[in-house]
Amino acid sequence: MVYNTLGKSGLLVSKLSFGSWVTFNEQVDVELAYSLMKRAYELGCNLFDNAETYAAGAAESIMGEAFHRGVKEGVWTREDLVLTTKIFFGGRGARDTHTSKGCSRKHIVEGLQASLKRMQLEHVDVVFCHRPDPLTPIEETVRAMNHVIDRGYAFYWGTSEWSAQEITEACRVADVSGLIRPLCEQPQYNIFHRHRVEIEYEPLYREFGLGTTIWSPLAWGILSGKYSGKNVPAGSRLSLEKYKGLKEAAFTEREWQIERTDQLKPIAQELGCSVAQLAVAWCAANPHVSTVITGATKIEQLEENFKAMDIVPKLTPEVMKKIDDIAQTKPDYNPEMKMARRVRGIDKA
Amino acid sequence: MVYNTLGKSGLLVSKLSFGSWVTFNEQVDVELAYSLMKRAYELGCNLFDNAETYAAGAAESIMGEAFHRGVKEGVWTREDLVLTTKIFFGGRGARDTHTSKGCSRKHIVEGLQASLKRMQLEHVDVVFCHRPDPLTPIEETVRAMNHVIDRGYAFYWGTSEWSAQEITEACRVADVSGLIRPLCEQPQYNIFHRHRVEIEYEPLYREFGLGTTIWSPLAWGILSGKYSGKNVPAGSRLSLEKYKGLKEAAFTEREWQIERTDQLKPIAQELGCSVAQLAVAWCAANPHVSTVITGATKIEQLEENFKAMDIVPKLTPEVMKKIDDIAQTKPDYNPEMKMARRVRGIDKA
Amino acid sequence: MVYNTLGKSGLLVSKLSFGSWVTFNEQVDVELAYSLMKRAYELGCNLFDNAETYAAGAAESIMGEAFHRGVKEGVWTREDLVLTTKIFFGGRGARDTHTSKGCSRKHIVEGLQASLKRMQLEHVDVVFCHRPDPLTPIEETVRAMNHVIDRGYAFYWGTSEWSAQEITEACRVADVSGLIRPLCEQPQYNIFHRHRVEIEYEPLYREFGLGTTIWSPLAWGILSGKYSGKNVPAGSRLSLEKYKGLKEAAFTEREWQIERTDQLKPIAQELGCSVAQLAVAWCAANPHVSTVITGATKIEQLEENFKAMDIVPKLTPEVMKKIDDIAQTKPDYNPEMKMARRVRGIDKA
Amino acid sequence: MVYNTLGKSGLLVSKLSFGSWVTFNEQVDVELAYSLMKRAYELGCNLFDNAETYAAGAAESIMGEAFHRGVKEGVWTREDLVLTTKIFFGGRGARDTHTSKGCSRKHIVEGLQASLKRMQLEHVDVVFCHRPDPLTPIEETVRAMNHVIDRGYAFYWGTSEWSAQEITEACRVADVSGLIRPLCEQPQYNIFHRHRVEIEYEPLYREFGLGTTIWSPLAWGILSGKYSGKNVPAGSRLSLEKYKGLKEAAFTEREWQIERTDQLKPIAQELGCSVAQLAVAWCAANPHVSTVITGATKIEQLEENFKAMDIVPKLTPEVMKKIDDIAQTKPDYNPEMKMARRVRGIDKA
Repeated sequence: MVYNTLGKSGLLVSKLSFGSWVTFNEQVDVELAYSLMKRAYELGCNLFDNAETYAAGAAESIMGEAFHRGVKEGVWTREDLVLTTKIFFGGRGARDTHTSKGCSRKHIVEGLQASLKRMQLEHVDVVFCHRPDPLTPIEETVRAMNHVIDRGYAFYWGTSEWSAQEITEACRVADVSGLIRPLCEQPQYNIFHRHRVEIEYEPLYREFGLGTTIWSPLAWGILSGKYSGKNVPAGSRLSLEKYKGLKEAAFTEREWQIERTDQLKPIAQELGCSVAQLAVAWCAANPHVSTVITGATKIEQLEENFKAMDIVPKLTPEVMKKIDDIAQTKPDYNPEMKMARRVRGIDKA
Repeated sequence: MVYNTLGKSGLLVSKLSFGSWVTFNEQVDVELAYSLMKRAYELGCNLFDNAETYAAGAAESIMGEAFHRGVKEGVWTREDLVLTTKIFFGGRGARDTHTSKGCSRKHIVEGLQASLKRMQLEHVDVVFCHRPDPLTPIEETVRAMNHVIDRGYAFYWGTSEWSAQEITEACRVADVSGLIRPLCEQPQYNIFHRHRVEIEYEPLYREFGLGTTIWSPLAWGILSGKYSGKNVPAGSRLSLEKYKGLKEAAFTEREWQIERTDQLKPIAQELGCSVAQLAVAWCAANPHVSTVITGATKIEQLEENFKAMDIVPKLTPEVMKKIDDIAQTKPDYNPEMKMARRVRGIDKA
Repeated sequence: MVYNTLGKSGLLVSKLSFGSWVTFNEQVDVELAYSLMKRAYELGCNLFDNAETYAAGAAESIMGEAFHRGVKEGVWTREDLVLTTKIFFGGRGARDTHTSKGCSRKHIVEGLQASLKRMQLEHVDVVFCHRPDPLTPIEETVRAMNHVIDRGYAFYWGTSEWSAQEITEACRVADVSGLIRPLCEQPQYNIFHRHRVEIEYEPLYREFGLGTTIWSPLAWGILSGKYSGKNVPAGSRLSLEKYKGLKEAAFTEREWQIERTDQLKPIAQELGCSVAQLAVAWCAANPHVSTVITGATKIEQLEENFKAMDIVPKLTPEVMKKIDDIAQTKPDYNPEMKMARRVRGIDKA
Repeated sequence: MVYNTLGKSGLLVSKLSFGSWVTFNEQVDVELAYSLMKRAYELGCNLFDNAETYAAGAAESIMGEAFHRGVKEGVWTREDLVLTTKIFFGGRGARDTHTSKGCSRKHIVEGLQASLKRMQLEHVDVVFCHRPDPLTPIEETVRAMNHVIDRGYAFYWGTSEWSAQEITEACRVADVSGLIRPLCEQPQYNIFHRHRVEIEYEPLYREFGLGTTIWSPLAWGILSGKYSGKNVPAGSRLSLEKYKGLKEAAFTEREWQIERTDQLKPIAQELGCSVAQLAVAWCAANPHVSTVITGATKIEQLEENFKAMDIVPKLTPEVMKKIDDIAQTKPDYNPEMKMARRVRGIDKA
């Protein structure tokens, strides 16, 4: 496993980490969750991501149980792990009221307190705003995040799916009042979804040392390779009744992605890996990616995922170019930089 | 004429203003420039926009001459006018060297000094960065703009075609050091180009009181209505040999815009105006638009343009909806706000 | 005993203090530790230094036990003592994981919480970063130190073995956000190791009022005088099996130091003291030294050490010069100051 | 020629620049100086460095004359060039008084005013403190530098031969008061003198984006290759009567450097260049070097120097290793980072 700091911080995180979105509860019980976390930890993973909303709070409860079993069995201590959660969509039993969700000071404090209780923890390592909340002034959110840090509920805070403008505004507010800036973002990033991580956030890496904990490295599962053609494999996430809507949207929006995934398979084969491993390695190879959040419901799947780290050194510029040529998703070179370099005489017109 | 403050400032500017891009020098001499400025001023216009690069510096020289003639003839004093310029592309005699362009401290100071000399002015009212310059740290630009303000070369500063993230970063830097923030942006805005002004800048109006001095209300001339079908009228800007490239690009990229312009004509007719007047009025009706920069090479054209102000009160929600339906360019309601309203229980899923 | 403030603070500390590095646990049990602390306290010592890593956490546990016995027996109260610890190398049971050591916010908080638990204390007086951690941004460390102070875990914070640049950077970060600067440094300092304390830190005394709690006044035991020639006395620290490597390194690197120690003995004799007392007094005589941390495993040794204070007034300029001439370690007068004084005409070329 | 920004600024400077230390006046008159500057400019050089003390002020007068001749002849404009000077040692006619030298506010203002007068300029681009001045509080110097920038005498300021601590202190003072930090340092740097640029300044690149304009790329001429053995070639700088002292110091201190220069010659030969070109290219290859200040008294020498840029791409890791092995001057990897990586479990013990 490779380790790097989470953005401009002293927190060393493994390049691959383990998340628990829908897989916990419905498909994964405490027993299995503990086996998965333990195996991930043995393979060098030290970051485990969660959210108040995953499985309506059950994901946190299960992860908390599994964590404490590992402490009792001497597998790890709290110090050895980076545990994270995300606040916005409401936790277990959150009702459809106007105050029990979002990034208001009220919900950040009440929501994180509930998350910690579910996980039986004194503190998480990083707490994220799971989404931007334009109904809450960013200053309020920045102050609330600093408040929960000051109370010892978290060591660092981040955002998820915020625009570069919103993150910059959060930094402005933090700087003006001497508060702690957001440390990291949790954006979607994969071979088919690149613009935000590669272009939009570029000034944030440079100016603030923003870290990223990326989700959906397999593009909602498409890059797992299992959707080849149009068959939904039994037992895959998209076969579940509750994801019927997602399935339809995915299949109308992303048919071309399935085609391209099929075209990527020969490249994976040449590198001696699956297309899923190629897709995870591709994310991990980006130096602005602090950690790639992977999921698994079986030990073997987890082990397969983590072998992606062996592929990273094989992603030469030539291989990367082949992937770009197939995926056709490489974002344009920043046009502002293009103009500036031409006007300033560095590049020719 | 209607007047409003330029963003969150005390500077009152007319809703319609007069710019001088390519029209000066080649098509407009000092004599004509003076007539146009004088007529505009009589019609209530108080803002005259320029840039170091317009006609390679000649536009500033001509405007300076015209301004001083007006002073001598008692038409106006310096106090009555808002004169602006923009720095980035280099002024008269700028060589293709690495230091004579851009938004570095060096070029902002040297460039504005040269502009003032050409215009024979002690100060402009607003100086703009004509483009973002990713080669220069935004802090350096903010400090340089404050420096030229401190030296009395300008009263306010703004940006042109900067992203919301860049403007927010400029505000962050300014706030941290107690410096003056950018006051306004000069973006392209018209019926066919709406996203930036209507969606991207929205947080900036709310948080910083950003003003806008918009350019290209006629979409590079398309909305003038004179390009109906594919004939380029003799004497129009696109008929000039030097705009051959622009013409080609325009006609391949913007044919559909011409079609839609034709479809807008009946609406204009109903309101008793030309489609150009409708297009200008449509811009002026946006409360976040501080001033619409118009151009003209003939007195009658200028007078026609300025009559657009009479159309603004006629732009009822119904008329606006008709325009939207034809142009098909209304940007989506901010999806972040949509999600927040749904999650927070204000709107239904 | 002589008392002075710990740097630019109101905390009065004794010029000699008592540390507990390797001597606790293996060589010193709670009984003996208590006797030593009590005797030191009777002799005027009020500062007792520790670290999470000393004896892998056992040093803190033993010191905590001894402290509480003294409270029960009415020897001292918490208010009478200055208790310090240092965070970086990990405490008892710290695994070789990436997050359980260093100066990250996570480890400073979790590490200090564990230290306090081991010592059965609500707070220490000073918490130190035991080493610089270039993997952690200094801003994060400054904020973490302020956080543990805000939570009441410590009253002051300091550094150990940080460079002048790193301390200055910590002050910059603190100043920018209105946070508490590091108050003191714990550097190695003795007759054979002078440059950092005497030259490198000089601007820090002047600008920040930096205090120093110096360690190794006897140069890893060399200046105790007991290593004369090449015999390692039985029972001395270097005779322990676990310090075999240290012994070899020491004896190849520091043979000349032993020779010079032998040459210092006549000076000590003239002053009526041992060379160890001379060495401790020499440190204490430096006005930038807030306290000299001494160690002892026997009551008599401790009493001998503390008599060094009687020697301090005897260290006249003449005696100091003799020591310099023998040790040959006096650092050059700051060459920058030399040049400035010559260029500015104060000294002749 | 290659261009890069001068540290974290928007000022684009050529990787090779032209300085004028002792060569102006005694060996170079206005005629020759103009020819040299013009040729350098034709070859892509845009930065010309000077100092109040070079040739006791004559260097500035000559450079000013040459610059203005270039303007008259249409070779360049002020905007195209980056002109720098350095204040500390006093300028033409500076007497041995206590106030006419150093980094006090008085001398920085009076000294720079005199420099500008000698050069017949409104402003330089960068003004440097030629040395640290421990007799002046750094805050005074930072404020004085901001003052001359505010008055329009310079666009940026830097230091020369300041320690990392001093530069950090300058940044602290600047940050606390919202002033402009030093942008760049002018350190000695060459194959034989590496520690400061490669190790000491490392945190400054990372934290402040410090740029460097390096002097003595040829190690006081040793790396020119002309001192092979012990003969001082007639006409070389060391043959001048006034450098007698320098010659003696050099020859006792640097005989081994001459030997190693001889050993570097075969490497140069393999790359198809002189050892001087190799030495200049070696400096330019360091990404933290903004510009290498070269000197020349003949057109051919200047042209030879500038060909060094063709060698830069040939400096592969293998070639660099060969140079390190011969010069034996590669500084140790930062020992603090070494310890942190071992303690944090990234590297093995």
